[in-house]
Amino acid sequence: MVRQNVVVDNDRCSIARALGVVGERWSLLVVRDVVNGVRRFEELREHLGVARNVLSRRLAELVDAGLLDRVAYREFGSRERYEYALTPAGRDLWPVLMTLMAWGDRHLADGPPPVEHEHLGCGGKVALVPVCEHGHDVDPADLGLRLGR
Amino acid sequence: MVRQNVVVDNDRCSIARALGVVGERWSLLVVRDVVNGVRRFEELREHLGVARNVLSRRLAELVDAGLLDRVAYREFGSRERYEYALTPAGRDLWPVLMTLMAWGDRHLADGPPPVEHEHLGCGGKVALVPVCEHGHDVDPADLGLRLGR
Repeated sequence: MVRQNVVVDNDRCSIARALGVVGERWSLLVVRDVVNGVRRFEELREHLGVARNVLSRRLAELVDAGLLDRVAYREFGSRERYEYALTPAGRDLWPVLMTLMAWGDRHLADGPPPVEHEHLGCGGKVALVPVCEHGHDVDPADLGLRLGR
Repeated sequence: MVRQNVVVDNDRCSIARALGVVGERWSLLVVRDVVNGVRRFEELREHLGVARNVLSRRLAELVDAGLLDRVAYREFGSRERYEYALTPAGRDLWPVLMTLMAWGDRHLADGPPPVEHEHLGCGGKVALVPVCEHGHDVDPADLGLRLGR
């Protein structure tokens, strides 16, 4: 990637704004777990190994930010409880999780990738690749930044 | 994305590992600024508006994690100072920044994207798209997760 001087104020930068919402380790781990079907408070607490109050706070923030919906459920003989479902904005975080996973696989894993993305049907492994609006595959060396128009 | 139950332990998960290194708001903002040519402590402090001690700690962590190199420089009449350069592992974070930016553009911006990725030469806007190893463009609805082999 070419490093150009395309510096915008933090309050306009979409990366800064995104990290203002999901730039906390537990937030993206919660989204990852909900993607993977871990949706209930106790399941999340157990899988994440996070303190109850921290998890409560993160879930409330993610609901307030419009990334998760809180859905009531009741098991026979129990009081009403809540589970969490992704909103469209929360679901749209899948490419962020995918690039974090690819980076971790490449630089931090101590073996083959534990989880892969697959193309359902053909079964091929899926990666995110840079493609331009004119249909060219873009070599990272030919990727630049410019101010928006 | 199909939600399957592909839950691995956090200590094996590449997303969790990646967030263990860059899962703190300032860390990815520092990497973003270094990508954009903001490389010196005082420039970073000023652009990020972050406390000096927080920035020092984040920079030291990013150097320890092998994402940044500290490079000495000396301006005429001044003492030796340091600037920061991305290592190959740090440079490899560009897809993470790109997906965060795309998500922020889509869900949090209050106008057109302030910054765009361009294909140098052809000038086309660049996006990350899911492609499988057999060359198929993958619809997000056909994207699944499976345990690695």
